[in-house]
Amino acid sequence: MLKRLIDYNDGEELDLVVYIKNSQLRHTKNNKLYLALTFADGSGDIRGNYWDADQRDADSFSSGTIVELNGKREEYQGRPQIKIYSLRVVGPDEGYDLNQFVKSAPEKVDDMKEEINNYVFKILNPTWNRIVRYLLEKWGKRFYDYPAGKSNHHAVRGGLAYHTLSMLRDADGISRNYPQVNQSLLFAGCILHDMGKVLELSGPAATQYTAEGNLIGHLVLIDEQIMMAAQKLHLDLESEDLLLLRHMVLSHHGKFEYGSPKLPGLLEAELLHRIDDLDATVYAVTNALQHTKPGNFTEPLMSQDGKRFYRPKVDEALDNSRKLE
Amino acid sequence: MLKRLIDYNDGEELDLVVYIKNSQLRHTKNNKLYLALTFADGSGDIRGNYWDADQRDADSFSSGTIVELNGKREEYQGRPQIKIYSLRVVGPDEGYDLNQFVKSAPEKVDDMKEEINNYVFKILNPTWNRIVRYLLEKWGKRFYDYPAGKSNHHAVRGGLAYHTLSMLRDADGISRNYPQVNQSLLFAGCILHDMGKVLELSGPAATQYTAEGNLIGHLVLIDEQIMMAAQKLHLDLESEDLLLLRHMVLSHHGKFEYGSPKLPGLLEAELLHRIDDLDATVYAVTNALQHTKPGNFTEPLMSQDGKRFYRPKVDEALDNSRKLE
Amino acid sequence: MLKRLIDYNDGEELDLVVYIKNSQLRHTKNNKLYLALTFADGSGDIRGNYWDADQRDADSFSSGTIVELNGKREEYQGRPQIKIYSLRVVGPDEGYDLNQFVKSAPEKVDDMKEEINNYVFKILNPTWNRIVRYLLEKWGKRFYDYPAGKSNHHAVRGGLAYHTLSMLRDADGISRNYPQVNQSLLFAGCILHDMGKVLELSGPAATQYTAEGNLIGHLVLIDEQIMMAAQKLHLDLESEDLLLLRHMVLSHHGKFEYGSPKLPGLLEAELLHRIDDLDATVYAVTNALQHTKPGNFTEPLMSQDGKRFYRPKVDEALDNSRKLE
Amino acid sequence: MLKRLIDYNDGEELDLVVYIKNSQLRHTKNNKLYLALTFADGSGDIRGNYWDADQRDADSFSSGTIVELNGKREEYQGRPQIKIYSLRVVGPDEGYDLNQFVKSAPEKVDDMKEEINNYVFKILNPTWNRIVRYLLEKWGKRFYDYPAGKSNHHAVRGGLAYHTLSMLRDADGISRNYPQVNQSLLFAGCILHDMGKVLELSGPAATQYTAEGNLIGHLVLIDEQIMMAAQKLHLDLESEDLLLLRHMVLSHHGKFEYGSPKLPGLLEAELLHRIDDLDATVYAVTNALQHTKPGNFTEPLMSQDGKRFYRPKVDEALDNSRKLE
Amino acid sequence: MLKRLIDYNDGEELDLVVYIKNSQLRHTKNNKLYLALTFADGSGDIRGNYWDADQRDADSFSSGTIVELNGKREEYQGRPQIKIYSLRVVGPDEGYDLNQFVKSAPEKVDDMKEEINNYVFKILNPTWNRIVRYLLEKWGKRFYDYPAGKSNHHAVRGGLAYHTLSMLRDADGISRNYPQVNQSLLFAGCILHDMGKVLELSGPAATQYTAEGNLIGHLVLIDEQIMMAAQKLHLDLESEDLLLLRHMVLSHHGKFEYGSPKLPGLLEAELLHRIDDLDATVYAVTNALQHTKPGNFTEPLMSQDGKRFYRPKVDEALDNSRKLE
Amino acid sequence: MLKRLIDYNDGEELDLVVYIKNSQLRHTKNNKLYLALTFADGSGDIRGNYWDADQRDADSFSSGTIVELNGKREEYQGRPQIKIYSLRVVGPDEGYDLNQFVKSAPEKVDDMKEEINNYVFKILNPTWNRIVRYLLEKWGKRFYDYPAGKSNHHAVRGGLAYHTLSMLRDADGISRNYPQVNQSLLFAGCILHDMGKVLELSGPAATQYTAEGNLIGHLVLIDEQIMMAAQKLHLDLESEDLLLLRHMVLSHHGKFEYGSPKLPGLLEAELLHRIDDLDATVYAVTNALQHTKPGNFTEPLMSQDGKRFYRPKVDEALDNSRKLE
Repeated sequence: MLKRLIDYNDGEELDLVVYIKNSQLRHTKNNKLYLALTFADGSGDIRGNYWDADQRDADSFSSGTIVELNGKREEYQGRPQIKIYSLRVVGPDEGYDLNQFVKSAPEKVDDMKEEINNYVFKILNPTWNRIVRYLLEKWGKRFYDYPAGKSNHHAVRGGLAYHTLSMLRDADGISRNYPQVNQSLLFAGCILHDMGKVLELSGPAATQYTAEGNLIGHLVLIDEQIMMAAQKLHLDLESEDLLLLRHMVLSHHGKFEYGSPKLPGLLEAELLHRIDDLDATVYAVTNALQHTKPGNFTEPLMSQDGKRFYRPKVDEALDNSRKLE
Repeated sequence: MLKRLIDYNDGEELDLVVYIKNSQLRHTKNNKLYLALTFADGSGDIRGNYWDADQRDADSFSSGTIVELNGKREEYQGRPQIKIYSLRVVGPDEGYDLNQFVKSAPEKVDDMKEEINNYVFKILNPTWNRIVRYLLEKWGKRFYDYPAGKSNHHAVRGGLAYHTLSMLRDADGISRNYPQVNQSLLFAGCILHDMGKVLELSGPAATQYTAEGNLIGHLVLIDEQIMMAAQKLHLDLESEDLLLLRHMVLSHHGKFEYGSPKLPGLLEAELLHRIDDLDATVYAVTNALQHTKPGNFTEPLMSQDGKRFYRPKVDEALDNSRKLE
Repeated sequence: MLKRLIDYNDGEELDLVVYIKNSQLRHTKNNKLYLALTFADGSGDIRGNYWDADQRDADSFSSGTIVELNGKREEYQGRPQIKIYSLRVVGPDEGYDLNQFVKSAPEKVDDMKEEINNYVFKILNPTWNRIVRYLLEKWGKRFYDYPAGKSNHHAVRGGLAYHTLSMLRDADGISRNYPQVNQSLLFAGCILHDMGKVLELSGPAATQYTAEGNLIGHLVLIDEQIMMAAQKLHLDLESEDLLLLRHMVLSHHGKFEYGSPKLPGLLEAELLHRIDDLDATVYAVTNALQHTKPGNFTEPLMSQDGKRFYRPKVDEALDNSRKLE
Repeated sequence: MLKRLIDYNDGEELDLVVYIKNSQLRHTKNNKLYLALTFADGSGDIRGNYWDADQRDADSFSSGTIVELNGKREEYQGRPQIKIYSLRVVGPDEGYDLNQFVKSAPEKVDDMKEEINNYVFKILNPTWNRIVRYLLEKWGKRFYDYPAGKSNHHAVRGGLAYHTLSMLRDADGISRNYPQVNQSLLFAGCILHDMGKVLELSGPAATQYTAEGNLIGHLVLIDEQIMMAAQKLHLDLESEDLLLLRHMVLSHHGKFEYGSPKLPGLLEAELLHRIDDLDATVYAVTNALQHTKPGNFTEPLMSQDGKRFYRPKVDEALDNSRKLE
Repeated sequence: MLKRLIDYNDGEELDLVVYIKNSQLRHTKNNKLYLALTFADGSGDIRGNYWDADQRDADSFSSGTIVELNGKREEYQGRPQIKIYSLRVVGPDEGYDLNQFVKSAPEKVDDMKEEINNYVFKILNPTWNRIVRYLLEKWGKRFYDYPAGKSNHHAVRGGLAYHTLSMLRDADGISRNYPQVNQSLLFAGCILHDMGKVLELSGPAATQYTAEGNLIGHLVLIDEQIMMAAQKLHLDLESEDLLLLRHMVLSHHGKFEYGSPKLPGLLEAELLHRIDDLDATVYAVTNALQHTKPGNFTEPLMSQDGKRFYRPKVDEALDNSRKLE
Repeated sequence: MLKRLIDYNDGEELDLVVYIKNSQLRHTKNNKLYLALTFADGSGDIRGNYWDADQRDADSFSSGTIVELNGKREEYQGRPQIKIYSLRVVGPDEGYDLNQFVKSAPEKVDDMKEEINNYVFKILNPTWNRIVRYLLEKWGKRFYDYPAGKSNHHAVRGGLAYHTLSMLRDADGISRNYPQVNQSLLFAGCILHDMGKVLELSGPAATQYTAEGNLIGHLVLIDEQIMMAAQKLHLDLESEDLLLLRHMVLSHHGKFEYGSPKLPGLLEAELLHRIDDLDATVYAVTNALQHTKPGNFTEPLMSQDGKRFYRPKVDEALDNSRKLE
C-alpha cells in the first residue's frame, strides 16, 4: 500500500502527490518573499515554506493545486514540517483529482439528494416550492459538493448538503411537536439558509472565502439570488410569501453580531436559527469528543464560546457513533 | 350563566368570588399603608387598591386567597381597576377552591403522567432511573400541579409537567437524529431539570418566589435533592453517574448570567439547555402571536431579548393551533 | 389668521382640519377596542383617544389621513389631549393636502436636486454612475419627499434628500483632505446609502415602518434594488465595481448591532459610515440644543447613547443658526 | 550544599530528585505521543518533553510524582528546558516526600489553626457553629494542606487556610466598623466559603482540577456538604439559619460570570464576596510587585482584568514586607 | 408641637415653612411653562406643580430656597402631591435656615474633625501631609458640611466627611493586616478622594450638580486643586510623591465606565477604590434594609446593579443599629 | 552608498551605527538577565538579545541610544535577528543624531507651523487664543517633534503636529457645513487635544510611555497645563470659557473605556472626538492598504476593532497617494 503523509517520520525523505490546502505569499521581516504552504492528502496535513518565491510561484502553487512534493520531514519548534526540495504542479492528464485527497461527509450524495428531494415535496406553498427548485437546479452541483465552512463544522466535502439534511430531520420532528409551525416555510428555510455559501466559498477542497463572501456574505448573497429567481420566474415581487422567505434567510444567524441584518421575526425564523445552531454544535462537540480520551475534557472549543466538554469514562453511545473527521 | 370578571363594564358594580393573584403591602409617599391587589378568576385579571391596610390585612388578603369582592369597575389612567367597597375571605367550607379560578395546561394530568412514565422506562442507567423515580415519588404531587414560572412561559397550572413533557418529545426526536447522544441521560435531565421549582415557587396558583427560591434557586435546590436522595438510596456518592446527573441540572440554564454555576460540559447538557430554551421560546412566541392580529407584530417580548414577531396575513398552522393562555 | 392646534388652551373647544400622525388600534384591559390617535398640523401635535372603535374605524382613521376634528382640549395627567366629539375623513376634493401640515427640510427641493445632480456628475466610474442615475430616476419622487426616519433625525419632509446632501458636502471636504479616497465611490455611496428608506418607510408624513422595513431593512432593500438595476442595465453581475458598491450600502451602519450584515471593509465604506453618523449626530444635537435654555443641559438623547449636551451661556453660532424642528 | 534546579546552566548535565508539577500526554502533529512535563523542586521549575511515551508512562509520570531526573539543561526558543536522558519514579521508601519540594504559606499551620479556632468560638449561632466545626473536623486535614488555587493567588501549600485566616482578620475589623453586620454569619462564611476546594482540587502539590471541580465547582460542592452535614447532625433542614449559611457560600463569587448561581442577597454575603476579592487581590498584586523593579510596572495581571501596577521608586512598606512566592 | 409635612392627610390644607429640594422649569406639551417642585422639611418630601410660571419664578423658587407653602394635600396617580395656593420666599431675617430642614450624618462634626485630624497626623510623607492640610484648610468648611452625593449614599448634611471618616477606619484595619501597604498614601487618598465634590455639588441641602461637576467631575477637579496647591506651596511639580497622590484621586472610581481616566495602578489606589466602594455599599444596603420588614427583600437597588437584599426574620445586629435616613 | 539594516541577508556579518528603538531587561526562566533589544535605522528594524546583561548594561543601552552594532544576521523561528558580537554606545561627538534614523511625517515642519498658526488666528475668543498661544510657546519644540503615539497611527517624527494639522483641515470644512458650530472652540480643541502627549511620551524617537503617561494620561496632563497657564496669565479661573476648553480636552476620547473622564457634552466636543477618530482611522487604514496587494485584504487592524480592509484590484486614488510609513 502507498505511504501517505501521516506515515513519514522525522528525517525521512518523501516524494509523493498531495494537494495544497492553504497557500499564502508572505514577507520575511527583511522583505524577502516566500510561500507558507500547507499540504494535505486526506491522511493529515503538514506545513512547509517555499523560500524565495515570487508572484508567479504564488499563482502556480495556489490553494487547491495538486502537486508532487519532494522533501524531507523535520521537527521544527515541536511541530513537524517539510523541508521542500522541489515542488511540481501535477497536470490534469496525470490521473489525479482532488476527490481522492479530501474527506467527505458521512452519507452518500445520492442518498442525501433523494432525502432532500422528499422534503422539497413537502413544501406546499407554490412560491417557496418554485424558488427552492429553481435554486437547487441552478446551484445543485456546488450544493452537494461544497463544505459548510472553512473549519468550524461540516468542513468536509458535501458538508453543506449533509448539514442541510440533518437540519431537515430535526425540523421534521420539531414541527410535529408544535403544530402551530408552518412546516413548508421551515423546510424551505432549511434548504436555502446556507446555499449562499456556494458563492461565499471558493470550492469543495482547500476552501477559502471569496471577495463576495467577505464583502457581502452568504446571507445577503442568497437573498439576492432569491430576488433574481423571483424575477426570472415572474413571481409577484411584492408578495408576502416572498417577503417571508427572504426574512428566513436574512435572519438565520439569529444575532446581529453574527451578521444577521435582522433578528428572527417569525416563529419559523426563530426555529430555523436554533436548529442551525443546534446541528452545528452537535457536530463540533461530537467531533471534539471523538478526539478526546474517556475521562478527559476537550480543548476549549472556540465555536462554542470557549466551552470545554467532558467525555465520560463510560459512554457507549459515543463509542458506537460514526467518526466525523 | 354566571358573570365573570371580564364581563363587567366601567361603572358597573360587582359582587363576586375571585382569588387574589398578587398582594403587596405598600406605603404611599406619606407613609400610609395600603394593599396593592390583583384579582383574577380565570377569565382575566384586574387591579385594585385596599386603602388604610395594616399588617393583619396583609396576612388575611395574601396571594392565593379566595375572597368575595364587592366594588365598582372604573377606568383609571386608561386601565380598568376596581374601587373596593369590601373584601371578605371565603372560608374553606363555602365550596370554592383555587382550581376553578386558575388556567391549566392544555393536556390532561393523567395523560401527561402516563407519557412521562413511559419516558422513565427508557432511562436504562440504574442510578439515574432510581433517582428520577424517587424524586418523582417524593415531589410528584406538586410536580403535576405547579406552573413552570411566574409569567414568562408555561405559567399555568400543570405547566411544569407540560413543559417537561414537551421537552421529552423534542429530546426523543433529536436523540434519534444523533445516535452519539446518551438518551437515558438526556431524558433524566429533562425530567429533573426544573423540578426544583416545587421548592422555588409557592404553589400552583398566584405563585410567588419563596425565600429558598430567591436565595438558592431551583438549580441548586434540585441538586441538593439529588444528593440527599442518593444518600437515602445508599448509592455511591462519588460515582461518575451521579456526577453527570448533577451536572445536567446545574448547567441547564446554559449561561452564567442565567444562574448556571457551570456551563454545559457534556453533549447531553448542551442539548438539555437548548431544548429547554427552544420549548420555552415556542410557547412564549406562540402565545404572543395568538394575541396579535394577522399582518401585525407582537409587542417586544422581554423573554426574547425584546424581539418582536410578525403574524403573517395568511397562516393556517397558527390559526388552527390550540389557544395557550 | 386661522387658529392652529398650538393656539388652543385647556377647556377650549375646537373644530379644525388636521392630519393623523399616528393611529393604533388598542384594547383596554377589558377587551374593548379604541383608537389611540395623534393629531398634527405642523404647529405641533396632540393626542386623543377614539373610544369604542372597530376595525373599520381603524382603516378609515389610519396614519396619514386628513380629518376634521371636533372636540375639546383637556389636560390629562399633566399632558394635553383632545376629548373627541367627532371625527370625519376629509375628502380629496376638499382642497387639503398633507403638504400643508408637515414640516419640511430647511432647503428647497429644487435647490437640493440641482446640488445633488452636480455631485452625480462627479461620479466618474460608469457602473456606479449608471446605477445611481437609474435608481434616482426610479425612486426620485419619493427620495425628495420622504423623511430620513421616524423620529431620531431629519424626520421632516424632504429630510432624506437633505441628509444625503449634507453628507455629500462633508464627503467633498474630507475627500479633498485625503487624496487616497476614491471620491466617486464615496459620492455614490452617500446618494444610495439610505435610498432603501423609500421602501422601509410608508411615506412623507405620519411615516411608519412597512413590513418590508421591519423584516428586511433599508440596507438590504437597496442592495436588492442595485442588483435588479444591474440586471436591467445588462451590467456585469460579477464585476468588482458592482461588488464594491453593494458593500458600501450593506456596511454603512458600521456595526453589526445596528443591522449591518458586514462591517466596513473599504476605506470609503468606513468614511461613509462615519459621515452618516456625524451628520445625524450634528442634526440631533443641534435640534436638542435649540430647545434648551443657555446655561442648561439637554435631556439625555437616546440617539446619542443617553448623553446630555450643554448649551453655553454665550454661544452666538448656535443663536444664529437656522431652527430645525 | 546540594545543587537545585535553579543552579544549573545551559549545557550542564544534571541528575537530581524533583517532582512533576504538571504532566500532559500530547500528540505531535504526526500522531506520536509524548509527555509534556514540568519539573519543580521549590527553587523554580523547568519544562521537558518525554518522547515516544505511551499511556503507561502517562500513568507513571503523572502530576505530583517524585522522580529522579537525568538529563541536560538546554536553551530552546529563549526558554530553558531539560533534554531528558532518563526518568525514574522514586519509591516511597527512598526518604523523599512532596513537602520538601513545595512552597508553603508564610505562616505556620499550628498558628493558623489556633487563630482560626479562636474565630470559631465567636460564631455564636449554634447552627452555624456546629456545621463549621463538623466540616472543619471532616475536611480539616486537607483544609490546612491545600492551596487556594492553581495559580492566581495563594497557590502554595496551606494557602487555603492562610487565605481564610487573612479574610477573617479583615472581617474582624470591618464588622467592628459596621455594628449592623452579623459577625457570626460573616465569620462562618469566611471559614466555609472556599472549603469546597478540598474536593475541587487534587491535592496540596501539583494541584489539578478534579472532574467534580470542573463539572460542579467548589461553591456547590460545599453547599452539598453543608446539607449532608445538617442531615447527619439532625438540624432543621428548612430553618432560616441553614438557608442563610447556604446562601453565603453559593453567592460568594459575587457575579454570575464567576460561577455564583445567586448574587449576594445579604449584607454579610456582599461583604464576604468583597473581602474574598480584596484579600486575593492584595496577594496577587503584592506578589507581582515583589517581582518588579522599583520605578517599573508589573506585567498585565490577568487576575486583575489585565491591569498593571507601578512599584514606586521609594516604597519602604513593600521593601520590608515578607516575600510571598 | 408643630405639624410637619408628613403629618398631613389627603384633603387637608397646609400653610408651613419648608424648603425647595428640587426645582425644574418645564413645558407642558402645548408649550406652557410650569415649575415642577419638590418640597421638604426633614420629615419627608412631597411634590407640587407651580403652574403658569416664568423665568423669574424659576429664579425665585430655585432649589434650596426656603418658602412659605400654602396649599392642599391631594392624592394624584397614587402619589401624594400639593395643590399650591401660594408660594412665598422666606426672607433671611425671618429666623429660618436650611439646617433645620436637612438630615445630618449620624456623628457630630466636631467629633469627626478630631478623628480625621488624628489620621492626618499619621500621614508621614511631607508632600502628602502638606497638601492634605492645605486643602482641608481651603475647603474644610464645605467638606464638613456637604453630602457625599445627590441620592445614592451619604446624601445627608456632613455625609462627605462621615463617608471619609468611615473609610479611614476601614483603611486603618486593612493596612494593619497588610504591612506592605503604604499607610500614609492610603490615608491621604481617603481624605482627598471625594473632596472635589465641594466643587461638583451646589451645597449641603437640595444639592445639584454644578456645570463644573457635569463637565469636569470631582476626580479631575480635585486633581487640579492638588496641582495648584503644589504650586502655591512651592513643591516639586515633577516629584514622584506628587504623581502618586494625583494618581490616587484620578483612579479611585476603579473603572473607566465610572469616570476614572486611569485604572488603579498602585496597590494603595486599588485599596482606596475598594474601600470607597465597600463603604458606600454598606451604607446603601443598610439604609435599604432599615426600610424593609424582616423576612422580606428590599427593592432592587440601582446603586448595587439592581440587586435585592434580604432582611432575615431574626437579625439583632441590624435591629440594634443606628437609623441612617 | 552605505548599506543599511534592510540590506543585509541571512548569514551576513554587519558593523554599523543604528539606534535602539526598544530595550527591555528580562529574565530567562533560570533567572539570568538579558536585554531584549530592537535596533532600527529608518530602513527597518530587527531584534537581537544581549545575553548576560546587568542593570548597568540596561542603563547604557536604553531606548533611544545610538550604538555601533557588530554582529551577524540570522533567521530564527522564521524571523530575522541579530546575533550580537559587540555593542558600543556612540558618543555625542561622533557626529550622529537620532534625526537621521527616524521616519518623519510627510509634510515639512515649517509648513505645518505656518498653517497651524493661521488657524490660531481664527480663534477669536481671547481666553482660548491666549491659552493656545501660551502652551504652543511653552511646548512648541516638542509639539513639532514628537509622534502622536507609539504605534497605532502617526507614529513618526512630527506626527503629533501632522495629525493636529490634518484635523484642523477637516474641522475647517465641517464647521463651514454646520454654521451652528463654534469654530474658535473647535480649532482650540484640535490644537490642544493631544498636546499632553509631550508629557505622556518620552521623545520623538524610540518613544515610550512615561510614568506620568501611565498614571495620569495625556487628557488630564494637558488639563492641568491649561489650569496652570490660566493662573499664570491671571485669567478668571471660574469663567465658562475656561470650563468649556477644559471639557474639550478631557472628553476628546469620546468614551469612558478610552480614558475620557467625561463624555462629550458640547456639540464641539462631540465633533472634536469624531474628527480625531476619523483622522487616526484614515491614517491607519491607508497605511495598512499601502502594504497590501490589490485584490487582497489587510491583516485585522487592532486599532480598528480587528476589522480588515480590502484593497480593490483597481484603485487609482490609493495608487497615487503618498506612502505613509
